Amino acid sequence: MLGIAEIGRYIPNVRVSNVEKLAKFELDEDFLKNKLGVLSQSIKDEDEKTSDLCVKAFYDLEQKTEINKEDIECCIVVTQNPDYNIPHTSAIVHGKLALEESCACFDISLGCSGYVYGLSTIIAFMQNNGMKKGLLFTADPYSEIIDHDDKNTDLLFGDAATVTLISTEALYKPVDFSFGTKGKEYQQLLCDKKLYMNGRAVFNFTATVVPKHIQNLMQKNNLSDAQIGRYILHQGSRFIVDTITKRLKIAQEKVPFNMLEYGNTVSSSIPLILAEEMKSEHSYMLLSGYGVGLSWASTILQKVEGK
Amino acid sequence: MLGIAEIGRYIPNVRVSNVEKLAKFELDEDFLKNKLGVLSQSIKDEDEKTSDLCVKAFYDLEQKTEINKEDIECCIVVTQNPDYNIPHTSAIVHGKLALEESCACFDISLGCSGYVYGLSTIIAFMQNNGMKKGLLFTADPYSEIIDHDDKNTDLLFGDAATVTLISTEALYKPVDFSFGTKGKEYQQLLCDKKLYMNGRAVFNFTATVVPKHIQNLMQKNNLSDAQIGRYILHQGSRFIVDTITKRLKIAQEKVPFNMLEYGNTVSSSIPLILAEEMKSEHSYMLLSGYGVGLSWASTILQKVEGK
Repeated sequence: MLGIAEIGRYIPNVRVSNVEKLAKFELDEDFLKNKLGVLSQSIKDEDEKTSDLCVKAFYDLEQKTEINKEDIECCIVVTQNPDYNIPHTSAIVHGKLALEESCACFDISLGCSGYVYGLSTIIAFMQNNGMKKGLLFTADPYSEIIDHDDKNTDLLFGDAATVTLISTEALYKPVDFSFGTKGKEYQQLLCDKKLYMNGRAVFNFTATVVPKHIQNLMQKNNLSDAQIGRYILHQGSRFIVDTITKRLKIAQEKVPFNMLEYGNTVSSSIPLILAEEMKSEHSYMLLSGYGVGLSWASTILQKVEGK
Repeated sequence: MLGIAEIGRYIPNVRVSNVEKLAKFELDEDFLKNKLGVLSQSIKDEDEKTSDLCVKAFYDLEQKTEINKEDIECCIVVTQNPDYNIPHTSAIVHGKLALEESCACFDISLGCSGYVYGLSTIIAFMQNNGMKKGLLFTADPYSEIIDHDDKNTDLLFGDAATVTLISTEALYKPVDFSFGTKGKEYQQLLCDKKLYMNGRAVFNFTATVVPKHIQNLMQKNNLSDAQIGRYILHQGSRFIVDTITKRLKIAQEKVPFNMLEYGNTVSSSIPLILAEEMKSEHSYMLLSGYGVGLSWASTILQKVEGK
C-alpha cells in the first residue's frame, strides 16, 4: 500500500520583514499578526530556480531517511512557477539529482490545492504502473511574480519547497480524496506577468465552500472530530485558517499555524506542517488546500498500523 | 474498466505554406516532403488561447458522441503553453464548458510524450477516485513561441488540440505503459521566451532510445509485430517516423503519417491519428511519444471485447 514515508523541506534563510512595509501600506502590526499572519517572508536568491529549491528539499529528505536514488521510479513537481515552461521542471530536477533513465517525470500545474491533488495523482500513477518509490515535489516561488505595490499580495507569500517520499513503506496513507473547481472564477487569482488576487473574493469562496467540503468528506468516511488528530489547512492567511477552524467548530490546538515567519508558501504550506507530524500518533489527519483556480482538495490520512 | 471512448479534434483552418519559406532557408521541396514532412502549418488566431482550442476540440467530441457535461468528473489539460501560468488552463476550460463544481481539474506539463503520460495519469487518477467519465485535453500552440529565424523550428510545428473521452464504456483500453527521462539533456529542447531545439541531438536521442524502448514494451507484454495493427508514433518529422519504422523492421502501412498539411502538433499528434482509428478492428495498437525533457512514453492499447 503506497503512502507517505517522509517529507523533506527547504525554506530559504533570507527573510524580508513585513513590519518595515507597514507605513507604505498604512497597516499596523496587529493586522500583520492577527489577520494576515505573516511577520516576515522567506525569499529565495534571485538566481535560484524552482528546480534548485526542489533539490535542496531533497537534500533535507536525505538527512532524514536513507534513499537509494536508483529506486526512485517517479518524480512529480507541483508548480506554477517552473524554471521554464518548456521543459517541465521535473525533468530538470531529474537531471540535477541524476535519477535513473527509467524514472517517469512530469509537472502538475496547480496552486494551493496542489499538494493534495499531487498526493492523489502520484499514488494512483505509481500504483497503476507498479512503482514502489517516488518523489512528489512542491515549489512555487511567488517572489518571482509579486507586484510590490499591491498590498493584497506583497505581504503574503513566501518561497519554499518540499519533497514527499511516496513508498510502500509508508507511515501515513490517504484513505479518501475529494476535489472541487469553480473555473468560472479563475480571474480572482491570476498571473499575467504580475500576480493579481481579489483577496475578498478568494476569502469568501474559501470561507463558504471549504468548511462544508471538509465536513462532507468526514461524513462520507464516518469520521468524527474526535478521531481526527490534526487538521492541516493550507496557510492562506491567519484569518482564513481561523475562519475555517471556527466554522468547523474544532479546537484550535488541532489546527497548526506556522506561516508567521515565512508566509504563504502555496502548495508547500501543507507538507511543511505535515513534515512535523510524520512521527505523530494521530490515527487520522485531515489535509485541505484551496486557492488558485479556484480549486480545492482535501484528503484524510490514516496512520499505517505498526508504524 | 476505464479506457478511451472517443476523441475530439480541432485543427485551425489557417495554414502557413512552408513552400514560400524555402528560399529564405535555402531548402528545397524534397526536403519539406521527405525529411521534414511538413508542407504547411496550421496556425491559430492570435487572440485564440489554449483554452479556446480545447473548447473547440470539445465541440468536435460532442458531434461524435453524446456527452452529458454533468457526468464529467475529471478534466486534465496537457500543455506547456498555458493561457497563463496561474491559474491552470484546465480551470479555465472548466469554466468555459460550465462543468460541475465537483469536477477535479489540473494541468500536466509535458511535451511530445504528454498524451501517453496523460492517458496513464487520468485513468489512474479516475480509477483511484472512483470516477467514471473524464476529459483529457492536449493543446500546445507553438505558434506563440516560434523563432521565425530558426530553420530548426520555424517550419516544423502546427497548432491543434484534442480531447479524449475517458469512460467505463471504452473502445480501447491501455494494457501497459512504459516511461523514460534523460533530464540531463533538458537543454536540447527549451523555451526561454523563444523556442530552441537542437534538432540533431533530439533526433539522435529518439533514433537510439525509442525503438529499443518499444521493443522492450512489446516483449514484456508477449506481443509480436503480427498482433499490433497500428504503431501510432509522435509525428516529430517524416525522417524520425521513418527511422523508427525502419529500426523496428515494421511495415510502413502500419505506421500512419499525417502531419504533412499541419505540422508537428506536440502532444496532440498521437490523438489526432488515434481519433481516426477509434472504430478500427485492431486487437492492439501501440502509441509512442518522445521529445521535450528529454522524455519518452509508450503504451499498448487493446480493443475492448464486444466493442
